[in-house]
Amino acid sequence: MENKKPQSIILTAPADESVQSLDEVRYPLLSHIDSPSDLRQLPQDRLPEVCSEIRDFLINALSKNPGHFASSMGSVELTVALHYVFNTPYDRIVWDVGHQAYGHKLLTGRAKRFHTNRRLGGLSGFPNPNESEYDTFAAGHASNSISAALGMSVAAALNHDEPRRHVVAVIGDASISGGLAFEGLNNAANSANNLLIILNDNDMSIDRNVGSLNSYLAHLTTSKSYNNLRYRTYRFMKKAHLFNDKNRGRVLRFNNSLKSLISREQNIFEGLNIRYFGPFDGHDLPRIIRILNDIKEMSGPRILHLRTVKGRGYRPAELDPAHWHAPGLFNPDNGELIKAAPGDKPAKYQDVFGETLVELAKENENIVGITAAMPSGTSMSKMLEAMPDRTFDVGISEGHAVTFAGGLAKDGKRPVVAIYSSFLQRAYDHIIHDVALHSLPVVFAIDRAGIVGEDGATHHGAFDLSYLSHIPGMTIASPRNEIYLRHLMKTALSEGTTGPWAIRYPRGNGKIVHWQQPMNALPIGKGEQLTEGKDVALLTIGPIASEASKAAEKARAEGIGVAHYDMIFLKPIDEDILTRIGESGMPIVTVEDAARRGGLGTAVIEWLSDHDYSNRVSRIGIPDQFVPQGTVDQLHHLAGMDSDAIYNAIKTIVK
Amino acid sequence: MENKKPQSIILTAPADESVQSLDEVRYPLLSHIDSPSDLRQLPQDRLPEVCSEIRDFLINALSKNPGHFASSMGSVELTVALHYVFNTPYDRIVWDVGHQAYGHKLLTGRAKRFHTNRRLGGLSGFPNPNESEYDTFAAGHASNSISAALGMSVAAALNHDEPRRHVVAVIGDASISGGLAFEGLNNAANSANNLLIILNDNDMSIDRNVGSLNSYLAHLTTSKSYNNLRYRTYRFMKKAHLFNDKNRGRVLRFNNSLKSLISREQNIFEGLNIRYFGPFDGHDLPRIIRILNDIKEMSGPRILHLRTVKGRGYRPAELDPAHWHAPGLFNPDNGELIKAAPGDKPAKYQDVFGETLVELAKENENIVGITAAMPSGTSMSKMLEAMPDRTFDVGISEGHAVTFAGGLAKDGKRPVVAIYSSFLQRAYDHIIHDVALHSLPVVFAIDRAGIVGEDGATHHGAFDLSYLSHIPGMTIASPRNEIYLRHLMKTALSEGTTGPWAIRYPRGNGKIVHWQQPMNALPIGKGEQLTEGKDVALLTIGPIASEASKAAEKARAEGIGVAHYDMIFLKPIDEDILTRIGESGMPIVTVEDAARRGGLGTAVIEWLSDHDYSNRVSRIGIPDQFVPQGTVDQLHHLAGMDSDAIYNAIKTIVK
Repeated sequence: MENKKPQSIILTAPADESVQSLDEVRYPLLSHIDSPSDLRQLPQDRLPEVCSEIRDFLINALSKNPGHFASSMGSVELTVALHYVFNTPYDRIVWDVGHQAYGHKLLTGRAKRFHTNRRLGGLSGFPNPNESEYDTFAAGHASNSISAALGMSVAAALNHDEPRRHVVAVIGDASISGGLAFEGLNNAANSANNLLIILNDNDMSIDRNVGSLNSYLAHLTTSKSYNNLRYRTYRFMKKAHLFNDKNRGRVLRFNNSLKSLISREQNIFEGLNIRYFGPFDGHDLPRIIRILNDIKEMSGPRILHLRTVKGRGYRPAELDPAHWHAPGLFNPDNGELIKAAPGDKPAKYQDVFGETLVELAKENENIVGITAAMPSGTSMSKMLEAMPDRTFDVGISEGHAVTFAGGLAKDGKRPVVAIYSSFLQRAYDHIIHDVALHSLPVVFAIDRAGIVGEDGATHHGAFDLSYLSHIPGMTIASPRNEIYLRHLMKTALSEGTTGPWAIRYPRGNGKIVHWQQPMNALPIGKGEQLTEGKDVALLTIGPIASEASKAAEKARAEGIGVAHYDMIFLKPIDEDILTRIGESGMPIVTVEDAARRGGLGTAVIEWLSDHDYSNRVSRIGIPDQFVPQGTVDQLHHLAGMDSDAIYNAIKTIVK
Repeated sequence: MENKKPQSIILTAPADESVQSLDEVRYPLLSHIDSPSDLRQLPQDRLPEVCSEIRDFLINALSKNPGHFASSMGSVELTVALHYVFNTPYDRIVWDVGHQAYGHKLLTGRAKRFHTNRRLGGLSGFPNPNESEYDTFAAGHASNSISAALGMSVAAALNHDEPRRHVVAVIGDASISGGLAFEGLNNAANSANNLLIILNDNDMSIDRNVGSLNSYLAHLTTSKSYNNLRYRTYRFMKKAHLFNDKNRGRVLRFNNSLKSLISREQNIFEGLNIRYFGPFDGHDLPRIIRILNDIKEMSGPRILHLRTVKGRGYRPAELDPAHWHAPGLFNPDNGELIKAAPGDKPAKYQDVFGETLVELAKENENIVGITAAMPSGTSMSKMLEAMPDRTFDVGISEGHAVTFAGGLAKDGKRPVVAIYSSFLQRAYDHIIHDVALHSLPVVFAIDRAGIVGEDGATHHGAFDLSYLSHIPGMTIASPRNEIYLRHLMKTALSEGTTGPWAIRYPRGNGKIVHWQQPMNALPIGKGEQLTEGKDVALLTIGPIASEASKAAEKARAEGIGVAHYDMIFLKPIDEDILTRIGESGMPIVTVEDAARRGGLGTAVIEWLSDHDYSNRVSRIGIPDQFVPQGTVDQLHHLAGMDSDAIYNAIKTIVK
């Protein structure tokens, strides 16, 4: 009954090793850079050309094969400077969120394979240590770079690495507002290390920035005069050999009084014992190189604050960086986005969620909306626009989002927290301790549940059912289509509904054009029988019901009677349906777009075991492996979860 | 086979409603305070007496019925002031970590039941909304108060509560360094609210404080002159009616320049747009009351920084506050701690861990140790003392602890991260994204796994097997005794061992006096058969094996043959054992001190289902409910997990 025995912790995809050589006329420099050591051979005055070539390459490549655009465009000079100044891969660069790392991929031997970016068997869209020794750490969830790089920097100190191994964390202004980044900053000065943190400040998260730290960072720019003076003082002292590690403390204190005198500036980083340099123009390549060389050998943790422009070098992206975060296909010549013809197309699940939420919130003034830096991604933007006072974008802080929701619920509000499945992992404890323990009525709208496709291993929403199903008192449901998403939202937000709810739904478009149907509250914990049959029970949850239906139809054509149940609820599970099936003794196939361990299939066999039924069960779901990137269909096939696999499971179990 | 059907999300314990009246001679005021409104009837000059009575009561009560001592002693004046100034329970006080909230319990109608503190059916040791309307939020995991209180404060603003509902978060200097607290601070100024944050700064976490923020807070004290001047200016302006909401911004700016001029102080909180007041002496009751009254009606988020002394008012505790955090029984007259006679007593699991770690670290210089503010609690203190350079106390920041470990492991170190099971929930995503995804060799030493006893619902380590078992590539093990803990540590830290490991062990003492036995590396994923039998297979993991053994013996005495297997590993699970049992068709009883959903029992039925075996299985574990406080034995009995329950399960299933 087991669908596959994991050989590796990564589900292996057939490799796409195809290469496309770079046109030597169009990319005279880039086409000869196979690794950063080639870059380091170039005289410094040729580097701006490298930057131009990278930008040209990215515009061209991403116009055809969509990816994260604006962030990587904004960090081109920084990327070139880092690989020019530091001895990568011996020196470590830790990117925070891979959005900004395409230039890094091009310079580290992957330009010829860049057309496979985010594709099955190709390059992953984020830095990936399994892909390249230049990619030092996973970078799919924000705010982890400081902690990880601190670990590497402390390791270097403990190892007495010779020559000294430099470790650089590159973190954006949105990521640095996450609690994990703060924990890293708070610990940076607490051990022997020489960590360099680069704050790549483009004044943007994917949407726009929120939070006081971000206003603070913006404000820092206004005090440039002091920082310039301070930096020049430092350079002068260093040149004059007046600066060394022994008098560093004194110089730092001198600088601080200087600062107070000149700018009356408060610096959070220096409050945390991290030397601060900046802000500087992150597109001024010679200057960044000079600064990096200057501060490279200094001891102790340092932060270098660079101001960059998201989308830099491509006018349409500079003008509307939020849209150009991941623009999809576009015409490189004029920046026209290439959209499918509008027509009567099914909406995205997230939009059904967003519009339905506004509808419900209009009826009940206690409903409030919360997003963690993803108003567009979750379509919480719709409520943010319609009811700005009742909608909260808390920035990249999923833990706070959930605990904040707990406080709101405690005093009578009905919070709806929309977070991607894999990012909600950050708030696992908060769900237990700050919501479930006191049965607070918080609705978790879990977007991007199941396989998400091109964003790959760090972004698949594989684990939500597994990490939620053992939490006492959670109601967990998933709609099979857009209309049921509306029904479930209505049910979860009804007057008498209590306790925490999780409603999970996938990335991408639904299948129903006219989804704006009236909403009904559903009976909680009740599934629905979709087809009758006597040979096998097919139990599904969520929109993967449609794959299962296809398989059932094929089996039915061969005379196999399939009783298809949409369970709708994982918890409480429909015991009437299970009793009926248990009594019948029918074999069972369960299907879910979620980890095989701990989801619907597991709940079914747990229930059967508890009630002493011995039906045979074949559980279809994501195997006990991390799943790489590819299209959703490709990955469902690869993981043994498509209609063919379901059909095979049906055939096998009825034998 | 189901052991119990949850009726409530809380496992219900028989209520202990016994009351002990307070001696009116010894407690002339406290004995008449049944609620804070009684307190508010008193003239202010009687309040110091109330404080003395609370202290006397706490010393007396806690000397007989152990609990958290020093934190509550340090916050007596603050507690009295809050309930005196604010209209509780209409106004909300949100305590961060309940250690400091005993005084609050005494003033809110629970003095007569305080002898049941932390006992089965009695008062819980932390604020608990199910127990009292004065307890607004769960307070077992640190750093959540700002986010939760912000939610309540925003709810009050949205509800236009009349009269204005005040919301106060009380957070310690250790808790405020957690990432969640920072996320709360970063968001505090981002919405309409009047949150008051009180920083109860005793310069201590349970052990001692670490992290730059804490040095920073200590430093703030030195700039008292400015803050005093500033506060006096504010009072003068208010008295002269010069201060109102309209000119607040101007005054704030004025204050900031004043500050720069006088103290050259950098204030992190004001950098985050939160008005800062302090530091003030947290034991100067009249002053605190005056300040609270002064700033109570101000708009917008504010922070009041109070310096307090942990253990205040009881000399032995003031002198050694770490020891007196939770001292156990003591003689109230002289502070002598009452310890059981030393003799040849088994050690605590945590000490076996701590000493074994030092042994192993001496042999392998790549081993490094990490604790999140719990050196004593986890006995990481032993390595911290022996090898301070290789041991890191990162403060209350479990997420950072894990990601930092990932970085260390990436560059050749073998980090051992010791965190309590329920606190490690905070790092669930970090385990997946920053360790497991790239198979980094980090060892999680999961202390306080299973039922922990008196600390109750927020502290039981119920979920670790459930939240770890679905993570690809995790090795998960639990020793049945101290010697196997040593074997497992040796195995996990051996040269050739790869990927992340979780080793879970319980709170409290083991059973083996001479546990300092030589260590052997164990075969990974192999269990051990402890007894032979043909009637039933008894599968256990962890030290609950001993309860199971008792049950097996009793059954054996009645002629039931019990084959007892200590599985040792949950993942990879021993497939040879399972195949043997599967082939035999024997009924199976699984036993674990962990949630029934998602642990060993679930792994067993998943495996049987996948391999088409239909043995009947009875799974014994923590039911799908939160478990309250009590002794471990009481709670195991209540949850149906003691040897009687196991015996009954054996009898039932062999019928």
